[in-house]
Amino acid sequence: MSAPNRNVLWARTFVDELAEAGVSAVCITPGSRSTPLTTAFDEHDDIHVFSHLDERASAFFALGRARRTGEVTPLVCTSGTAAANFHPAVIEAFQSRVPLLLLTADRPPELRDSGANQTIDQEKLYGDSVRWYKDMPEPEATDRKLRMLRTTATRALSEATGTPSGPVHLNFPFRKPLEPTPVADDVPADLDTEAALGREEGGAYVDTTAGVPELDDDQLRQLAQDLEVERGLIVAGPADAPGVDHEAVAALAHATDFPVVADPLSGLRFGGHTRVTTVLGGYDAYLDEQVTEDWPDPKIVFRFGASPTSKPLRKYLARTDARQLVVDPAGEWREAEYAATDLVVADPSQLAWRLSQIVRAPRDPSWTERWKAAEETHWSAVDSAVDDGETFEGRILADVADVAPEPSTVFVSNSMPVRDIDRFGRPAARNLTVLGNRGASGIDGITSTALGAGSATTDDLTLVTGDIAYYHDLSGLLAVGRCDVDATIVVVNNDGGGIFHMLPIEDYDPPFTGQFKTPHGLDFESTGDLFGMEFARVDVDGFRETYAEAVTTPRTHVIEVETDAESSHRVRESLQEQVVDALSE
Amino acid sequence: MSAPNRNVLWARTFVDELAEAGVSAVCITPGSRSTPLTTAFDEHDDIHVFSHLDERASAFFALGRARRTGEVTPLVCTSGTAAANFHPAVIEAFQSRVPLLLLTADRPPELRDSGANQTIDQEKLYGDSVRWYKDMPEPEATDRKLRMLRTTATRALSEATGTPSGPVHLNFPFRKPLEPTPVADDVPADLDTEAALGREEGGAYVDTTAGVPELDDDQLRQLAQDLEVERGLIVAGPADAPGVDHEAVAALAHATDFPVVADPLSGLRFGGHTRVTTVLGGYDAYLDEQVTEDWPDPKIVFRFGASPTSKPLRKYLARTDARQLVVDPAGEWREAEYAATDLVVADPSQLAWRLSQIVRAPRDPSWTERWKAAEETHWSAVDSAVDDGETFEGRILADVADVAPEPSTVFVSNSMPVRDIDRFGRPAARNLTVLGNRGASGIDGITSTALGAGSATTDDLTLVTGDIAYYHDLSGLLAVGRCDVDATIVVVNNDGGGIFHMLPIEDYDPPFTGQFKTPHGLDFESTGDLFGMEFARVDVDGFRETYAEAVTTPRTHVIEVETDAESSHRVRESLQEQVVDALSE
Repeated sequence: MSAPNRNVLWARTFVDELAEAGVSAVCITPGSRSTPLTTAFDEHDDIHVFSHLDERASAFFALGRARRTGEVTPLVCTSGTAAANFHPAVIEAFQSRVPLLLLTADRPPELRDSGANQTIDQEKLYGDSVRWYKDMPEPEATDRKLRMLRTTATRALSEATGTPSGPVHLNFPFRKPLEPTPVADDVPADLDTEAALGREEGGAYVDTTAGVPELDDDQLRQLAQDLEVERGLIVAGPADAPGVDHEAVAALAHATDFPVVADPLSGLRFGGHTRVTTVLGGYDAYLDEQVTEDWPDPKIVFRFGASPTSKPLRKYLARTDARQLVVDPAGEWREAEYAATDLVVADPSQLAWRLSQIVRAPRDPSWTERWKAAEETHWSAVDSAVDDGETFEGRILADVADVAPEPSTVFVSNSMPVRDIDRFGRPAARNLTVLGNRGASGIDGITSTALGAGSATTDDLTLVTGDIAYYHDLSGLLAVGRCDVDATIVVVNNDGGGIFHMLPIEDYDPPFTGQFKTPHGLDFESTGDLFGMEFARVDVDGFRETYAEAVTTPRTHVIEVETDAESSHRVRESLQEQVVDALSE
Repeated sequence: MSAPNRNVLWARTFVDELAEAGVSAVCITPGSRSTPLTTAFDEHDDIHVFSHLDERASAFFALGRARRTGEVTPLVCTSGTAAANFHPAVIEAFQSRVPLLLLTADRPPELRDSGANQTIDQEKLYGDSVRWYKDMPEPEATDRKLRMLRTTATRALSEATGTPSGPVHLNFPFRKPLEPTPVADDVPADLDTEAALGREEGGAYVDTTAGVPELDDDQLRQLAQDLEVERGLIVAGPADAPGVDHEAVAALAHATDFPVVADPLSGLRFGGHTRVTTVLGGYDAYLDEQVTEDWPDPKIVFRFGASPTSKPLRKYLARTDARQLVVDPAGEWREAEYAATDLVVADPSQLAWRLSQIVRAPRDPSWTERWKAAEETHWSAVDSAVDDGETFEGRILADVADVAPEPSTVFVSNSMPVRDIDRFGRPAARNLTVLGNRGASGIDGITSTALGAGSATTDDLTLVTGDIAYYHDLSGLLAVGRCDVDATIVVVNNDGGGIFHMLPIEDYDPPFTGQFKTPHGLDFESTGDLFGMEFARVDVDGFRETYAEAVTTPRTHVIEVETDAESSHRVRESLQEQVVDALSE
């Protein structure tokens, strides 16, 4: 690898190693200090560059790609507060186990803590929210340093995709010249080692082969015995990227005859497996204490994924007497009710598959029937409400789940859209990948994450977001044109923080309206002009038709649905009461 | 202080103590976990609440207020990534010594690291970028804890305004109920201590009296002797909030007969003192090696403030043989050329004042005349260029400095506006407070910082920003209406990163256009519609008139000035060549 100076050699070598290891895209924001990395990525034929202008949006975009694909997406930024703008997405990636590779350019050591311009303390900038941090050495064209560089590239990728996966931060000091200007004697002419040139035969310089935790046969047999009870549940929380194996979970459900309680972000709410598996999606409405007090408790609950979105579900699990196994490959107790009794450190897909081969559970059809009846009651109530022309925000999510083309990636924002698809997205044999940022459940970076996810697939992309989240990530809309993503963006506009109507603070006004609901009166039509998107404003009744047309039309469409958060919440409540009353009769 | 539950008592007590200590405004973003703090601030009569919807913008707004006034501005946010969105502004505040008080709500200890929703690791979230961090105890209605709470409030304020000032982070765990709902026995009826009720006589519960470093008489005399030379310079870098004392510096300049090299952010470029003091503002153009090689070196340089914006100035100082004193009250060597010979730990205003009383410098009028002549050459060249109708971005800043009403706060963005006002903002006896975010020199949060500064004063407010910075902080524009700030926002639109034309990477395309210049083609007219602002688009020639009208008209006006970065840079270069040639003849 020839290079006009050590910085170019350094960056080219690093990028070459990433590409050899399979990295196919990078998100870059402009800056001077990062010039060597940016230039090396830009000139590499096998890596697609997504160029962003706001580091916060760039990081969420990378998060979305990595969440959708499970592949590491590197990010490049210049020195200074640019790097701090990555922080929200880094935390979300850490919490939800999404692999990112943060490449921050920095001043050389003699300029740190010196008063030099645009120089901050970037060491361990993201604290404990990264899987691995390394302050890179100063670039130098020596064989040992280049071996270190290539090894570090591979190590960074394997740390990012390890168990659990997550963000990795490498801080790169560069000294001028930053551009590819020739510097005499900076790169020795006889530097012809494989670390400098890359492997003669092609491929990565170093490889990682990493196993995942797997139970031994005795442990497996014991666990299978534990599952051989007549009443059990499989609870699938939000999945780690890139999701669990549908078939493995369906096989376990089949072997145990346990219903699958499928969080909308579990990857199990929608798909062909719902034809042959009892997949539950209405629990958020009917798992009321009044309903379940007469139900027998499950004897065992087999849980995986993160903590479920549904609070009624979490509360139900906390009040059962069931033995509860939390299956987590990283050995984390992600269970804040502290109702779990057993932690099983294993890969959930592999484990489900192996268990399904040996479990022979005694069946109790009445158990499954009870859940199916509850589901039927809920979905009938929802259908009737829709038929009766009730307008509530949940209908929007029901429509999206029903109408989105196949295959679609559907990204749902916090705080209401994810709760609404949880309650109103009926399990179906549809090819939908539903994603959300449920690691830290922020309303920041939603649009960018969705567009990033969309950029990684040929799926149709639908984003359902709220007006506050849409506003929060306005700058992220630049990616629509700049990164050429075709999306349908549904903005549920209730002019403020609709979720606060679900909280007791609603009864205290002031401060409710001024500090919580926070109506802003923004007219989003001009965001269409600003970012080159089609814009339509509809009410809940008109949504389905407009959406159906928009998703099949090229270009990005924004559909603003004007809603009333308070009355939506009342319909939501009354529907639930209806279901609870019917089931507890 | 009565309260329905311990959380309300806790938050009210804390806010009461802040108010008693003089806090007059807070920036709040909505969220559930922070309900006790938000409610307590909202109900307090003496604290104005600025409600924001994007935490990043909120933090920069608070930074702007605190930078303009020197007063601590608290910030409230909910748990999760909300807090991480503060990070860029926290770093800027840390680097530029602006007092902020970050109040982040958090889950109680049993929910941390548990998989609970919206729960992240907020401990020491900002790393070493705060002056003080404390994880607050769980609220409890006991006298000792309330004494701790009031003492912590005062301690936080005094740490934030200490030497140096900067951000302080208090992390507040709250357990439900978060709203002011009554909880029996949560607050004992007999809790009638002063820690609970506040001082009977009014005022803060505890006070801090803090001195600043001051030299003793021997040290002062020694320093005065050092200054008694015929050739010296006073170099004022960007000021720590709320700035240095004009009169003290003018007195020292008078006593020594040293010219004052006034960075545009030093607070010394404009003001009445320029009538009686030699204030230099054209150095960025004429301090070329070709000019100064025949100049005698100064014997001493008296420096204070942060590292100057001007690179030619920094390079000049580095190549002189002068003894260089860096005066810094916090004892930091903010001097990245490592050309300083002496660090003087003292308050610059106080020190300048005391020195001016005793220094009797031998005068060398030829020294001052040399600088005055250089200034004259530069400003004549600028005037001629304007008269000749040359269009370059620097003219915009020259016009703003000339036309802005008095008093005005003029906020200049990185990366070009601050460099342009440095070179083209002629020292004048005008009442202008020029501010910028020069701690980390980011282009993030510029609009928010400016609007925050504007909210703190009755000055007219002008922001001069670039198209990338304007885009980067789009969400910050919400404060125009929401926080009722009347501003004139000048967007120098050269469709991308104009500063990169000043860097050597310009010669390498690709990647120059795609990854550095990054043209985006955004039509900002719709931002006027979106955020309720008047919008006008002009060229450089039409700017002065449009600006003069806009600043005197109510409502916020956006004036987009379409420019060409490359040709602006060429004019900038040719003007400088002209000056350098004239001075080195």
